[in-house]
Amino acid sequence: MGLVGAGTRLAQMSRSSSQQVAVIGAGVIGLSVAWELATSGLGVTVVDPAPGSGASGVAAGMLAAVTEAHFTEPDLAGANVLSLSLWPGYASRLEAASGMVVGLERAGTLVVAGDPSDRDALAQLGRFVNSIGLEAEWIGARELRRREPLLSPNLTGALFAPGDYSVNNRSLHAALLAACKTAGVDFVQEAASGVATSDATAIGVTISGGELIAAEWVVVAAGAWTAGISGLPLSLTSALRPIKGHILRLSPTERAGPLPLLSHTVRGLVNGRPVYLVPRADRELVLGATSEERGFDLRKEAGSVGDLLQDARAVLPAIDHCELTEIGVGLRPGSFDNAPVVGRVGPRGLVAACGHYRNGILLAPLTAELVADEILGNSRHSIPSFLPSRLVERKNPALQEGGLG
Amino acid sequence: MGLVGAGTRLAQMSRSSSQQVAVIGAGVIGLSVAWELATSGLGVTVVDPAPGSGASGVAAGMLAAVTEAHFTEPDLAGANVLSLSLWPGYASRLEAASGMVVGLERAGTLVVAGDPSDRDALAQLGRFVNSIGLEAEWIGARELRRREPLLSPNLTGALFAPGDYSVNNRSLHAALLAACKTAGVDFVQEAASGVATSDATAIGVTISGGELIAAEWVVVAAGAWTAGISGLPLSLTSALRPIKGHILRLSPTERAGPLPLLSHTVRGLVNGRPVYLVPRADRELVLGATSEERGFDLRKEAGSVGDLLQDARAVLPAIDHCELTEIGVGLRPGSFDNAPVVGRVGPRGLVAACGHYRNGILLAPLTAELVADEILGNSRHSIPSFLPSRLVERKNPALQEGGLG
Repeated sequence: MGLVGAGTRLAQMSRSSSQQVAVIGAGVIGLSVAWELATSGLGVTVVDPAPGSGASGVAAGMLAAVTEAHFTEPDLAGANVLSLSLWPGYASRLEAASGMVVGLERAGTLVVAGDPSDRDALAQLGRFVNSIGLEAEWIGARELRRREPLLSPNLTGALFAPGDYSVNNRSLHAALLAACKTAGVDFVQEAASGVATSDATAIGVTISGGELIAAEWVVVAAGAWTAGISGLPLSLTSALRPIKGHILRLSPTERAGPLPLLSHTVRGLVNGRPVYLVPRADRELVLGATSEERGFDLRKEAGSVGDLLQDARAVLPAIDHCELTEIGVGLRPGSFDNAPVVGRVGPRGLVAACGHYRNGILLAPLTAELVADEILGNSRHSIPSFLPSRLVERKNPALQEGGLG
Repeated sequence: MGLVGAGTRLAQMSRSSSQQVAVIGAGVIGLSVAWELATSGLGVTVVDPAPGSGASGVAAGMLAAVTEAHFTEPDLAGANVLSLSLWPGYASRLEAASGMVVGLERAGTLVVAGDPSDRDALAQLGRFVNSIGLEAEWIGARELRRREPLLSPNLTGALFAPGDYSVNNRSLHAALLAACKTAGVDFVQEAASGVATSDATAIGVTISGGELIAAEWVVVAAGAWTAGISGLPLSLTSALRPIKGHILRLSPTERAGPLPLLSHTVRGLVNGRPVYLVPRADRELVLGATSEERGFDLRKEAGSVGDLLQDARAVLPAIDHCELTEIGVGLRPGSFDNAPVVGRVGPRGLVAACGHYRNGILLAPLTAELVADEILGNSRHSIPSFLPSRLVERKNPALQEGGLG
């Protein structure tokens, strides 16, 4: 992991007039990394033409370590749980640093069931998460009705995950931006065109027009847009792809029913499609989300919006009388194996913090610590499944042809 | 009808320095009236804070004299047919005067049927419209498929109304605005607060701040907002109410299928709810519309949008792959008996042109002629069902109490 090398580079940086770290991307990942590094004493510049305009701005903000757990991805589940455990302290520190509220909601998550096959699937998920030491319990129809009286009477029970919180993604982003500015982070509102290298070493970020933002370290946190940045290894860029999601924001009208419409995050499967409803303190409901392979397409499609509304109405009929305040489209930064790519990659001085797919907000505190450890030569955590080294090991025809990995 | 009186007033006007006619409302009705009067040589001022921001801007633009015909409203059906007959010449004159295209589409309208009860209802509508001399013919599944191959295979036939055209409501409004300006119409972009009267005679329009736009005649064409204008008789304002409609605008993506997706206006009943799809020359599809009694509520509601998408998908599955470019909400100016109110009412010099409900665009040419005839002392048409005199004849507790009719 080059701890000695990192120390040498740091010593050089402290004598240099250039910024020590340039971060490409001012989404939640880029900002959480920038804040962590800046509060560790490094000079940080963040390059982004429109901070928060990507997936961070449209995300629902579920911190779903338990209810996103998959049997086939136990390593990823473990990392999610680790990052979730960081969240309460992280939110407190960020609120103190920014003077802003991030909207961490701790009521937990209900994964609702309709028919017997839903119940079987949820019972299986419950056993799995219990087996890896996580809390989740089955609650029946009567108790579900008591907790969430406005849910459809067709629902017969739910798996309750008390530890699956949510955070207001937009409040979080605003707080990170404020905390970064307080900590002295510089912002360059330009599109990064590439990572500049010299002698197989990153020397900064080029922006449109060719100007160089000089830096000793470059952190790439550009989400789905990472693949469009020049100077990155093909092993990285070929491992990433955008996964389109439609998401709706709703606000109850006076006809919707007694408020709040929901007290917990509610997830479910309807017509075989996953749907979730995330309540905010201000009564907003976030309704998501589709998953579509469409490349870099941000158009709002009638079928996707129709699916979301139809499925959500089956879970919570009261949404009929909510104002539809926003249709959002975001591009999740998907990776070939659904795990993020966090660590050193390609030229010396380059660190990846991308590919977080559905869990960028959940994984922000952990990612920030991993990247800071990498640059500062610490090692608080070991998450092998996030390491970029796995990229070159996979079979990839493009790599075999191009040979740039 | 006061023909002599009208002549006297006209003689006075030509000696006056005030504008001869003030029109409240720059929607399609107000502008069509203003253009007709201005081209007849009168000085016209139109008062509207935001021309085209009301129902005219969100309407679909169907000219549905046949497919909106109702057994119970033969007089209204006759007026609709009369106005439809004016439309081709009207569109030509307007395009010549404005130098703009209004988007009159003449392919006709298909009212599609799913189950046998739909077919029965449409057969009955066909017999009714044929009985009043209108063209409509039943076409079977094979012919329907030939004409509109992308319609749902669940549809079993359609009533074809070749005379039910459509017009691009926004192009129409823009052309009317241009034609009015060319014809010398003045525009005051302020909200009208009331009709000013003196000695039981209208003397102009007061705007916010109290300023008077002096005029010899006042035409009220403020759509659903008419009831909020002071100085109007209660018999008029109590006869009107807003009827909320949601309407969507869609644009095919490359995944939607061969273009155009539709060649005709397509209407149908799905889940007991009416739905229509109106194609534009630029491939836009207008999808409408809900009918809701909600007062002056312009919020976009999730249930209404969900209903529209669900019903339209049942008619034309390809809309799944259309971009949802706009969710519109408009307030139709409904009247107590669904017929517009066109003619002299209340103080001398006041003419109503409101309450057009679902058919304002269809009825614009006829309304313009009726109002011009009223003011100029002509009588090209007689439409008793539009006359304001019917308002005072109806039983209305508010009128009996207030006694202002």
